[in-house]
Amino acid sequence: MAEAPLESRKLYVRSEDAQKFVEDVLKGNGVSAKNASTVARCLVQADLRGVDTHGINRIPSYMARIQQGALDAAADPVVTKVTPVVGQVDGRNGFGFVAAHAGMKLAIEMAEQFGIGMVSIKHSNHFGMSAWIVQQAIDANMMSLVFTNSSPALPAWGGKSKLMGVSPIACGAPGRDKPFILDMAPSVAARGKIYKAKRREEKIPLDWALDAEGNPTDDPTAALGGVMLPMGGPKGSALAIMMDVFSGVLSGSAFAGHVTGPYDPSKPADVGHFLVAIKPDLFMSLDEFRDRIQYLYERVVGSEKAAGVERIYFPGEIEQLTQAERLKNGIPYVSAEIDALNAEATKVGAAGIIVRDQ
Amino acid sequence: MAEAPLESRKLYVRSEDAQKFVEDVLKGNGVSAKNASTVARCLVQADLRGVDTHGINRIPSYMARIQQGALDAAADPVVTKVTPVVGQVDGRNGFGFVAAHAGMKLAIEMAEQFGIGMVSIKHSNHFGMSAWIVQQAIDANMMSLVFTNSSPALPAWGGKSKLMGVSPIACGAPGRDKPFILDMAPSVAARGKIYKAKRREEKIPLDWALDAEGNPTDDPTAALGGVMLPMGGPKGSALAIMMDVFSGVLSGSAFAGHVTGPYDPSKPADVGHFLVAIKPDLFMSLDEFRDRIQYLYERVVGSEKAAGVERIYFPGEIEQLTQAERLKNGIPYVSAEIDALNAEATKVGAAGIIVRDQ
Repeated sequence: MAEAPLESRKLYVRSEDAQKFVEDVLKGNGVSAKNASTVARCLVQADLRGVDTHGINRIPSYMARIQQGALDAAADPVVTKVTPVVGQVDGRNGFGFVAAHAGMKLAIEMAEQFGIGMVSIKHSNHFGMSAWIVQQAIDANMMSLVFTNSSPALPAWGGKSKLMGVSPIACGAPGRDKPFILDMAPSVAARGKIYKAKRREEKIPLDWALDAEGNPTDDPTAALGGVMLPMGGPKGSALAIMMDVFSGVLSGSAFAGHVTGPYDPSKPADVGHFLVAIKPDLFMSLDEFRDRIQYLYERVVGSEKAAGVERIYFPGEIEQLTQAERLKNGIPYVSAEIDALNAEATKVGAAGIIVRDQ
Repeated sequence: MAEAPLESRKLYVRSEDAQKFVEDVLKGNGVSAKNASTVARCLVQADLRGVDTHGINRIPSYMARIQQGALDAAADPVVTKVTPVVGQVDGRNGFGFVAAHAGMKLAIEMAEQFGIGMVSIKHSNHFGMSAWIVQQAIDANMMSLVFTNSSPALPAWGGKSKLMGVSPIACGAPGRDKPFILDMAPSVAARGKIYKAKRREEKIPLDWALDAEGNPTDDPTAALGGVMLPMGGPKGSALAIMMDVFSGVLSGSAFAGHVTGPYDPSKPADVGHFLVAIKPDLFMSLDEFRDRIQYLYERVVGSEKAAGVERIYFPGEIEQLTQAERLKNGIPYVSAEIDALNAEATKVGAAGIIVRDQ
């Protein structure tokens, strides 16, 4: 067989090198060292987990938003306690990662004291992969619910124009070495997967999206000009509306189709989030709770397998296995992605990303 | 056209007559007047909303559980406050309706004071249609999350044997006259719809379930002996696991496939529930919140329609319209259903259900 063409050959980057690179680019764009560290950690964690659509490849579009004045790189979120168990975060149009990290931190503190803590976040931006917030809660031995809204990409069921975001429903619970982590878009496929296919000049399956005329398409550019399809028809559509009610309507942020898209630099995104932390050891010891999650894990992965299935996975487990592998071998990128990242470094006089020796 | 055969002709019952009938049958089976009123109201509300699978036709199977000693008709739930915002309900193997009603009442009281209230319920039974609990919260001007687990009916994704319940995810928020109510099973179809097809001797669509050998089937009996199919493959499966984590693992109730089915009288069901009430006017006035839900409603139903779509509905709206129609014209049943209900009345010396004059 011929060697793979250069542009699709994989280049591997160590996670700590990716972290350092992203921090430098962010700091070069006016982000504080503390916030740069948070944002970089969330982006690199997405790449480690194999959620490539929400990783450091987003840097060029995030930096474009800063440079065009649509996202405030220097903003720090304002955190307010409304009751002993309810907090509010005003993201002040800074990074969603920073607002959500501060929000979950407060939710965890309140849950440690009262069993549950809820934080509503307004005037925020895209916070990337929801699973990192779920993991933040798990690292503090907490269950969580993580909802967000996002820019229109999905029709309400029966509609043909974009209205609701392809916003994931996410949640989690600590276990032994296998936590429960759900992070799931209400579409047949995640929107970022279409951007990734476009970037990599790949076709998409015909059941992911409709083009602008309402016809099925395998062309990512045509799909981005049309609408994503919700999973389960009205069910996926209703989940997307749920995300908008809890994240947008409740918080005072944009909703009902008014969140600005990440690739539209004309105005702030005004994303809303909804975070809840729950103490798992309210009705039993933490040890017993962990045992119960472990038992559930064993029952799920130990199920009698359907024909052709080699292995059954627990929600979040594939990503956890990918993370272990990538921590060891590095994160794979294609050269066009590395070039785009290095172009951002050049703009601010930072060093290029270090690619591992093969 | 020939007249419809007698057994499929619709007989109409006024909701107040259905309520009285169910109360009498329940009281004849040892349920207190107060609890009978709660259970009857929830069952009749399901029929009013058109959720026929969770209405008074469940009475024969519920009564069988009482008569076989699998459900304690006389039990009253024990309600405990664990923190100022966390409650625990021990259903003591009584009706799930009663335990969940008491649980949501406490959640609402805590949310009124602190903005959010969470109640975990263990040792409970089937609580029917989740939407009645969401409506209980809406009637108190509250948002809510209503999760439950249930007996195995769905494989984990990749498995071929039943492990997870077809447990709905439900939530809601008050609006003007159009509240947001989501109540959605993670399967392609709700399991009760298969029972209903069986009772009515109807076929089911081929994509609802697999038979015991793992083949698609249109026979409801074969489907009930096989497995339901989750919507969106791994996504529906993960939602079912989410319901089990929050309802079963957290509460101390049965989980991981150990909830007993409603048609298995050999032991208590040991269902777990998870209820959250949230004050919608934490960050704005209730009036403004209602306006925002109303605006979202208008944006959704006012979307540009896809070809062939006459009307777009908001989540919960079809059921709300059905309720208005059935409050006026009565609830339709078929004669086999009326006969089965009257047989339960006969057993306890109660009067038969009153069918409206046509």
